Amino acid sequence: MDTPSTLENPAIDGLRALFGERCSTRPAEREQHGRGESYHPCRAPDAVCWPGSTDEVVAAVEICRRHRFPIVPFGVGTSLEGHVAALEGGVALDLSRMNRILMVRPEDMDVTVEAGVTRKQLDQELRDSGLFFPIDPGADATLGGMAATRASGTNAVRYGTMRENVLALTVVLADGRVVKTANRARKSSAGYDLTRLFVGSEGTLGVITEVTLRLHGRPEAVASAVCSFPSVDQAVATAMETVQAGIPVARMELLDGNVMEAVNRFSKLDYPATATLFLEFHGSAASVEEQAAMVGELAAGNDGSAFRWALRPEERNALWQARHDLHYATLAMRPGAKVWGTDVCVPISALGECIREARRAAAEAPFFVTTLGHVGDGNFHMGYLIDMADPAELQAAERLNERLVRHAISLGGTCTGEHGVGYGKAKFMTLEHGDAAVSLMRQIKHMLDPENLFNPGKILPPA
Amino acid sequence: MDTPSTLENPAIDGLRALFGERCSTRPAEREQHGRGESYHPCRAPDAVCWPGSTDEVVAAVEICRRHRFPIVPFGVGTSLEGHVAALEGGVALDLSRMNRILMVRPEDMDVTVEAGVTRKQLDQELRDSGLFFPIDPGADATLGGMAATRASGTNAVRYGTMRENVLALTVVLADGRVVKTANRARKSSAGYDLTRLFVGSEGTLGVITEVTLRLHGRPEAVASAVCSFPSVDQAVATAMETVQAGIPVARMELLDGNVMEAVNRFSKLDYPATATLFLEFHGSAASVEEQAAMVGELAAGNDGSAFRWALRPEERNALWQARHDLHYATLAMRPGAKVWGTDVCVPISALGECIREARRAAAEAPFFVTTLGHVGDGNFHMGYLIDMADPAELQAAERLNERLVRHAISLGGTCTGEHGVGYGKAKFMTLEHGDAAVSLMRQIKHMLDPENLFNPGKILPPA
Repeated sequence: MDTPSTLENPAIDGLRALFGERCSTRPAEREQHGRGESYHPCRAPDAVCWPGSTDEVVAAVEICRRHRFPIVPFGVGTSLEGHVAALEGGVALDLSRMNRILMVRPEDMDVTVEAGVTRKQLDQELRDSGLFFPIDPGADATLGGMAATRASGTNAVRYGTMRENVLALTVVLADGRVVKTANRARKSSAGYDLTRLFVGSEGTLGVITEVTLRLHGRPEAVASAVCSFPSVDQAVATAMETVQAGIPVARMELLDGNVMEAVNRFSKLDYPATATLFLEFHGSAASVEEQAAMVGELAAGNDGSAFRWALRPEERNALWQARHDLHYATLAMRPGAKVWGTDVCVPISALGECIREARRAAAEAPFFVTTLGHVGDGNFHMGYLIDMADPAELQAAERLNERLVRHAISLGGTCTGEHGVGYGKAKFMTLEHGDAAVSLMRQIKHMLDPENLFNPGKILPPA
Repeated sequence: MDTPSTLENPAIDGLRALFGERCSTRPAEREQHGRGESYHPCRAPDAVCWPGSTDEVVAAVEICRRHRFPIVPFGVGTSLEGHVAALEGGVALDLSRMNRILMVRPEDMDVTVEAGVTRKQLDQELRDSGLFFPIDPGADATLGGMAATRASGTNAVRYGTMRENVLALTVVLADGRVVKTANRARKSSAGYDLTRLFVGSEGTLGVITEVTLRLHGRPEAVASAVCSFPSVDQAVATAMETVQAGIPVARMELLDGNVMEAVNRFSKLDYPATATLFLEFHGSAASVEEQAAMVGELAAGNDGSAFRWALRPEERNALWQARHDLHYATLAMRPGAKVWGTDVCVPISALGECIREARRAAAEAPFFVTTLGHVGDGNFHMGYLIDMADPAELQAAERLNERLVRHAISLGGTCTGEHGVGYGKAKFMTLEHGDAAVSLMRQIKHMLDPENLFNPGKILPPA
């Protein structure tokens, strides 16, 4: 980690005057704020500040703008593509203390929260309301961070992603303007879609300080099931057929044999260590039964096992906790290693081919490889479990990822279904979007952040 | 209509050289392209051109940019807020000849069309595919126009609006760049959301030439029903309770007694001329039955009648055709008059209050007034049937609309749920969004169209 000359830094002086104790330059804090949960190395900021309000964010932005000091918005650091790496130094604005749930409106099925509220905190708040917020990326991320990366996760196949479930944002811009992007109407044709401009902008266009979310009614009945297959191909075929039949599954997760082995070990479960679908059905009791029967038939046609049901809430929770702990379960397969997680997403008809080719290419890899995915969306992750000290492993992972991304894009897909670009995938943006679209993205960045104050080096490739 | 000196206009000369017979300055063509379907007066363009390809649009934009000649993209002219009015003259780019369905991909449940393909044309193309495109604004609009106005309509309560159902666009920018906004993956976190930047931009940021849409599986069972209520309040209460109970109705349309009277006359039907919900349920046979039973119970609790079912496709078509013909049915109630249609959308809990107040205010109006709405979305329309030659009626309609819009915004709603801003509602943008958001919209417009070439005078209020 670089040692900044923090004693002579007027930006940090200004931030200290503003935040007092809530501004830190301690190495441990800086180190903790310079990394997410992936293989990307730590790039520590020069300082960390904990604003408590939108007004304080405005004041901090003002100070940083005056001194051209970069700002990296920070939630809880669960990102996977180096989003929080302070590539050009500056301050990490840690929003975790802006964690008030401002207004729950059950009768409108929406909620407004400060950006630092986490997914689980909201879940807890809603537990007796009959409502829930479905977007679930696994990690207990902040809702501001989830908006910023356009997160999705296991429920997206039925409930959509942050793109569909954010109603409005409050955003602090580089020039100090505070923009409320929309009202709370479920639909509106009143002008440019400012909400979607910031959803997925990864902290590069402004600092999200408040989020209004759409909630959904808790389904009357929920049933989870596990179905094993002789091969990944057959599990994927079942998922594709389920989507194409329009069966409204709530969750449909692929886990290959390696993943199942890691899950069984880490979460002390005893599922067959072979290709598996974790399924969940939401609806009325009758509709859940009907959906399950339909998917069961498709699975049987692909040599799937009978469903192993998790009907009681505690069984279901154990199942999905195991799914959520996958990142840690995978890490436990090779202590000391890091996971390089790929994240392509392709049109559903191309999913089988894309997964097959990715697994074929990785078969020779010198490290443990997992395949899992939100297959109902056409999104899957290869996990390359690498020793960061071994350049050969890192290079092999990089080569495999690049090959996979190119293949996915050639199939009409994207380099990232849900993790975001960060700086890990900036180099694929032109391949995916073309020069014209990337140049338009550059214009947007320049329009909102002409001095490149917000999270520099992310999303866009070097010009 | 102004008479432009078309003989000495170098922009028109250039367009004539490019388009030949497909460039017209005939008064009848110009007149037809200067108006939508609402009360807004005709503002004819100086010329009308019919491009046949994205390349021709690029060439036309190049000519117009050189001569600073405004461009108004035109679909089939079904807009309601003066979107196609050539406020500063220029050329109407009529995209109706770009009407090829480029690629239907049933296995991915998506389709790519040229912007001039209409909703019904697509419907026809998909009729044997098992798939359908749900966005249905009533009019047989072009899909490019529907994207440009962020249209929705009767199915939005279940399937979303154009915001949720456009996967990608091809857009010609003012400087000639052709941007493909996204690939076909169902979700992506790869950079700024260019698709949503153009959905709802009403031709002010670029010319949409191709649209890739998400399709949905045709439901196994469909049932439509009509339910009458003693009062609008009770019908609205039923709609609100249905939404809050999370029942996934596919359509839920409110029609007041005046509308029903107009419908009965125009479509030769015999429904009671009282507040009514038109409902449609999609799903498996069992789920349709279940949904209907649940809504039936809620309706009964609000003194609703037993459902009158339209089960056979031809009965259903008659019902929804009557709903779609409402605009014309209303016009027939007062020959020679125009409909001033309001379009507010509010959070669902405020819908009853908003409708009650709007109807109370309109009770004294000197003209026929209807109330109808996509009440599941919190969106409704008052129809003021006015004599355009009577300034007092026009003023009364304007006053009522303004009062309604202010009320809706104070309730957390929007001045336009689906019709768009055009120039009719530009004056409400600051009230609804605030100075900061409107200034950001201005920046976006300036970034993409610094010479104000595209559809000038729309969306944004005069600076």
